[in-house]
Amino acid sequence: MKVIVYVIPKKNVLDPQGTAVGQAMKSLGYVQAKNVRVGKTIEFEIQGDDSPSFRASIDKLCYDLLSNPIIEDYRYELTD
Amino acid sequence: MKVIVYVIPKKNVLDPQGTAVGQAMKSLGYVQAKNVRVGKTIEFEIQGDDSPSFRASIDKLCYDLLSNPIIEDYRYELTD
Repeated sequence: MKVIVYVIPKKNVLDPQGTAVGQAMKSLGYVQAKNVRVGKTIEFEIQGDDSPSFRASIDKLCYDLLSNPIIEDYRYELTD
Repeated sequence: MKVIVYVIPKKNVLDPQGTAVGQAMKSLGYVQAKNVRVGKTIEFEIQGDDSPSFRASIDKLCYDLLSNPIIEDYRYELTD
């Protein structure tokens, strides 16, 4: 099973990388974007089937290791 | 319209950050994962409706600014 985890800074946390990307979009003449946020994507393959205990282990992994829950939110997708 | 861009290293490109995360998962006793890849997520809000020309401008932005097309693949999602 393939797991894709998305980690993004929380709404009320300052994101200087996102601000820099937004300014670059503007100054280089691309689209005018608002609220640019830059986060992480972590993809991996893992043995197991989609079940509550499987999701609990993925949640623990995301909460403990892959994100900083004080300043970041995460979500994940499971695909075959 | 909200745009979420996912940028991930190409399959045949070495990803030391992904390797490090995979080793951390293993040594800290979490799930045993294979093929760990770490990429970027860029979220932003933009004026416009979903149309071929709109998608062309997003593609140009992703190709030119948000990803390095030599070593990275990108995909994006549009939501209201």
